[in-house]
Amino acid sequence: MNDGFAYIDRFAPGLPDPTPKFAGFPPFNFIGGHNDPEEIPRDALAEAASRVIRREGAALAMYNLGVGPMGYPPLRRFVADKLARHRGMAITADDVLITSASGQGIDFVCRLLLQPGDTVLAEEFCYAGAIGKFSRMGMNVVSMKLDDDGICIDALAATLAELKEKGVTPKFLYTIPTIQNPTGSILPLERRHALLALCKQYGVPVFEDECYADLVWAGGAPPSLYALAPDQVIHIGSFSKSLAPALRVGYAVAAWPVLSRMLSCKTDGGTGALDQMVIAEYFSAHFDDHIARFTAVLSEKLDTMVEAVAREFGTSVEMFKPKGGIFLWLKLPDQVDVRTLIKPAADAGINFNPGPEWACGGPAAKSYLRLCFALPSKENIREGVAALARVCFAQTGIPAFSDNSRNVA
Amino acid sequence: MNDGFAYIDRFAPGLPDPTPKFAGFPPFNFIGGHNDPEEIPRDALAEAASRVIRREGAALAMYNLGVGPMGYPPLRRFVADKLARHRGMAITADDVLITSASGQGIDFVCRLLLQPGDTVLAEEFCYAGAIGKFSRMGMNVVSMKLDDDGICIDALAATLAELKEKGVTPKFLYTIPTIQNPTGSILPLERRHALLALCKQYGVPVFEDECYADLVWAGGAPPSLYALAPDQVIHIGSFSKSLAPALRVGYAVAAWPVLSRMLSCKTDGGTGALDQMVIAEYFSAHFDDHIARFTAVLSEKLDTMVEAVAREFGTSVEMFKPKGGIFLWLKLPDQVDVRTLIKPAADAGINFNPGPEWACGGPAAKSYLRLCFALPSKENIREGVAALARVCFAQTGIPAFSDNSRNVA
Repeated sequence: MNDGFAYIDRFAPGLPDPTPKFAGFPPFNFIGGHNDPEEIPRDALAEAASRVIRREGAALAMYNLGVGPMGYPPLRRFVADKLARHRGMAITADDVLITSASGQGIDFVCRLLLQPGDTVLAEEFCYAGAIGKFSRMGMNVVSMKLDDDGICIDALAATLAELKEKGVTPKFLYTIPTIQNPTGSILPLERRHALLALCKQYGVPVFEDECYADLVWAGGAPPSLYALAPDQVIHIGSFSKSLAPALRVGYAVAAWPVLSRMLSCKTDGGTGALDQMVIAEYFSAHFDDHIARFTAVLSEKLDTMVEAVAREFGTSVEMFKPKGGIFLWLKLPDQVDVRTLIKPAADAGINFNPGPEWACGGPAAKSYLRLCFALPSKENIREGVAALARVCFAQTGIPAFSDNSRNVA
Repeated sequence: MNDGFAYIDRFAPGLPDPTPKFAGFPPFNFIGGHNDPEEIPRDALAEAASRVIRREGAALAMYNLGVGPMGYPPLRRFVADKLARHRGMAITADDVLITSASGQGIDFVCRLLLQPGDTVLAEEFCYAGAIGKFSRMGMNVVSMKLDDDGICIDALAATLAELKEKGVTPKFLYTIPTIQNPTGSILPLERRHALLALCKQYGVPVFEDECYADLVWAGGAPPSLYALAPDQVIHIGSFSKSLAPALRVGYAVAAWPVLSRMLSCKTDGGTGALDQMVIAEYFSAHFDDHIARFTAVLSEKLDTMVEAVAREFGTSVEMFKPKGGIFLWLKLPDQVDVRTLIKPAADAGINFNPGPEWACGGPAAKSYLRLCFALPSKENIREGVAALARVCFAQTGIPAFSDNSRNVA
């Protein structure tokens, strides 16, 4: 291995710190948006890949498969159909741009609308990747209060009025209305209408991230914000959660003036073709049964985790039971700062996502944490949550009433 | 289709122009780096995809297949082995970072080393994508004189001395030494040594782009610059040319202090997994025979294009016959400005790459053009070159001695 670069003193200032070597997953891995390896439909994906490559593989010889930078047409048609059937969106493939995962969609929206110093609105607890992008662009992020049903409309109205008083129009309102990340809430229909009305009144575009909307427990969700007001909303989604995060494919749905400018920012030469082709081939035939099977598995794993957390943390913990998705958001008592648990938990083979990284307010969320229940097996969930409770007790004396913790610690 | 975005007045200033709708390829498509659709090994790729997904598909459930952000290990091992065998590079998989095509590698090197106003060295005729990235970052691009063997060392020595006189140390020297784009030259071994010695003397890192180095006609090429001086060079490559450009997979080879910082800039959540897995599975078994077959086909297509250009343009054209790759670089008489041919050629169903886009000096290359011979069939090459000669004659009176042109125009 080559350890020496003679010009290491030439690196530009302000680079992020170097990334350390990957050390592998810990025994109890509750971080990130990984999925359930058992639920990857290997045989069906292999058949889909084989079929689509034999049929259309010659097109791989051309950039963007020779059909232009919007993405593989059968995938765009599938997305339009899926969003029409499940999210109430009256769209066609022409309204769909395939992106290199939804993170690229966030990059595009930021690029199109933001300049340093601008103000954006985001949920008080919010996807760390989005917060990170907003911060790196020098945004002023104003947080929106959440309750069990998502954004509190009265508080939002007050915030918008206050900002207007100061002469500030937010450049967009970023929201994950359907299976909010990390709280797992679903914004009810009347709040959706109210939010859109407020945004229209104050002239604020809505940036809707529906990365988890395919993974809703029984009961479903109201139509997307885009479905209710297409000219006010830029909508993004992903296949990372509904199929597999190692596939780097997402999509943006918006009016042509938005998509045509996103295309001009898409300098990656296209999104990986095989990822696109295989998703289209598999999901065009199997989306509904895949989702039914997968959400049933996830819902069971959530139950396992909820039981384990209740057993190990008892009354010390507040759980925000999600209405779908792959995460459980928890709150420990105020005197617990989860940041002090990161290192001892890691030493015990446990990774979790600390609240401050998933919150606009940062340190104010110090007693919160997020656990992903999709990757680990049920047995691993039980053991890992118990191990985390022991670490927490050893560091903080909490949970005080956990037999398990007291016996072992 | 949704044509209205209510906040179109909110777009940030300085965005690139919107991209028009894709209109399809013209009948004679000589632009870009497309490949030969007949040569995509569909059956073998389908088998490789089916095999690797059945064997390792469960790992798709995890970001980066659960093995970290450097890329799919079998692909990194294949790249290391290929570069050792064909490019003389003493490396292992630890020295290889998989990128989302080589364009991402260029982005990373720019990000790591450049600040607005910096000076970089580039070949006088140069990959448009790289020139574009350097320009967008506000670089001062100083061009290096080329002859039939690539960079002229005496001229480079004079340029470096001149810059030093002015107190300027270029942040890097960007070069495509093996099948230069667009001229198709190969830098001889003694020039490689001389270039590296000069760069060492003046303290200039070398940024080596070997995107075409797998496609060398019989006779081969000297070792890469990285092979000769690993601590001075950042090396990138791609599978776009050797296999298929719709797959978005490339690689960077450099010392760990460089790769570890590239990783921190790799915020795309990984490169598409299926593209990586299928390339590794197919090329680990079939690289040498694939390349032998493919270069034989390309070399024949080049001969067809050279014959057609000679027949249609006669003595009006200077051809730079490439030593590999997929492009033919041409020069018409000084009085022809190829930019005036773009529109009439497009009207006649012909696309070509005008020289000014492939040159650091821009307008100074107004009589040059680049034709890709990989995508079109031999018949299409013959008809397209004849059609281009007719357009050229109609617009400029050149080629004056082409029977074909005179008869039809």
